[in-house]
Amino acid sequence: MTGTLYGIGVGPGDPELITVKGLRLLQASPVLAYPAPEEGPSLARSIVEGYLNGAKTEIPIRMPIVAARFPAQAVYDQAVETLAGHLDEGRDVAVLCEGDPFFYGSFMYLFGRMAERFKVEVVPGVSSLTACAAVLGAPLAARNDVMTVIPAPLETDLIRARLLENDAAAIIKLGRHFARIRELLVELGLAAQARYVERATMANQRILALDEVDERAVPYFSMIVVHKRGEAWRL
Amino acid sequence: MTGTLYGIGVGPGDPELITVKGLRLLQASPVLAYPAPEEGPSLARSIVEGYLNGAKTEIPIRMPIVAARFPAQAVYDQAVETLAGHLDEGRDVAVLCEGDPFFYGSFMYLFGRMAERFKVEVVPGVSSLTACAAVLGAPLAARNDVMTVIPAPLETDLIRARLLENDAAAIIKLGRHFARIRELLVELGLAAQARYVERATMANQRILALDEVDERAVPYFSMIVVHKRGEAWRL
Repeated sequence: MTGTLYGIGVGPGDPELITVKGLRLLQASPVLAYPAPEEGPSLARSIVEGYLNGAKTEIPIRMPIVAARFPAQAVYDQAVETLAGHLDEGRDVAVLCEGDPFFYGSFMYLFGRMAERFKVEVVPGVSSLTACAAVLGAPLAARNDVMTVIPAPLETDLIRARLLENDAAAIIKLGRHFARIRELLVELGLAAQARYVERATMANQRILALDEVDERAVPYFSMIVVHKRGEAWRL
Repeated sequence: MTGTLYGIGVGPGDPELITVKGLRLLQASPVLAYPAPEEGPSLARSIVEGYLNGAKTEIPIRMPIVAARFPAQAVYDQAVETLAGHLDEGRDVAVLCEGDPFFYGSFMYLFGRMAERFKVEVVPGVSSLTACAAVLGAPLAARNDVMTVIPAPLETDLIRARLLENDAAAIIKLGRHFARIRELLVELGLAAQARYVERATMANQRILALDEVDERAVPYFSMIVVHKRGEAWRL
């Protein structure tokens, strides 16, 4: 009997926002894999650290900072070999994913390589999207709103068009693109309806108006949520 | 000391997809409120039924089928009075929300009426969006995809424009709009990349190709997920 590969969404950061199912499968799996930086601790692992019970084989999937030196695809190819070894010997493997495995997550790279050969189950998690809405105290979308998720690395003209057409938007992957996005939101008259959220539901969470943000220190785990209705839903 | 109002996302349907936090607060709250139809059981309550421990005051918020007879806004005004009574007497109230409270949820109507007067905490949940991706075994969005949520009741021309512009879309609130949406996806050459999901993660979940769906029996809890890449991500 080969093992099962579980892709477990551990949620946005607060350890209590993992699902009951994710927690059960994580604790039952003898092998744990998770994304990690080239050096140092894994965020996904740190979220569930308090739940880890007993000895497990741990497999950090370390992503090099300089992708040219060792391409991401080669990292996943290598990880697949290691994980497949455990599955072939009948051990279940839990892969920890920040947020949800299939919402802009790297789990797809493992899933795409392994789903035809092994039993794979995806356990959805709370995404950063709804976590941001919760901590902002403002609905993400309601009624017949069209709601769009826009990655900040895209071209400004494309982002402008998407913002003009839709009722609500979440702009993700801000990082070094923040200043350009802020300028665009000011140009469109949307800055006052936008909020910046950093590390939603984590201990070091921050919520700021756009003009309070230091553009030199915007982490990857940040998002701008903007809704054209402003506060009109409070009725 | 007044009580706290908790808006708890109970997830898409599988009872195990509630979060650890949602479960803890639900079990600790002496008062439970939930949306319900004019007659019959509440879906949100049925999801957490197995977790209910001991005696609680239960408050179904029943929505009349014919809104003209008793408008939804009046239903929420009335519910607020009942919930406020419990909070004023120091009892915490947990409001159960299908999926996530702030992702096209009705919790905003209570939140908008109560957040300035009471302490309100929103506990995000797994949305039907990521639950559908999980059961389909296909990433919802990845890399720099623009991903859009489109309510089916909107006009066909608007939906066509949004589908043409974006990489991935989830079309929600299908119900009686299904046939029109299917026709549109066929027109745009996107039918083969689209999947229909009914009651994702529930015991009676169904996944169908568009031409397998009986348009006369499409429930509210159904969604079409479409991605232009097709299977190209499997590399």
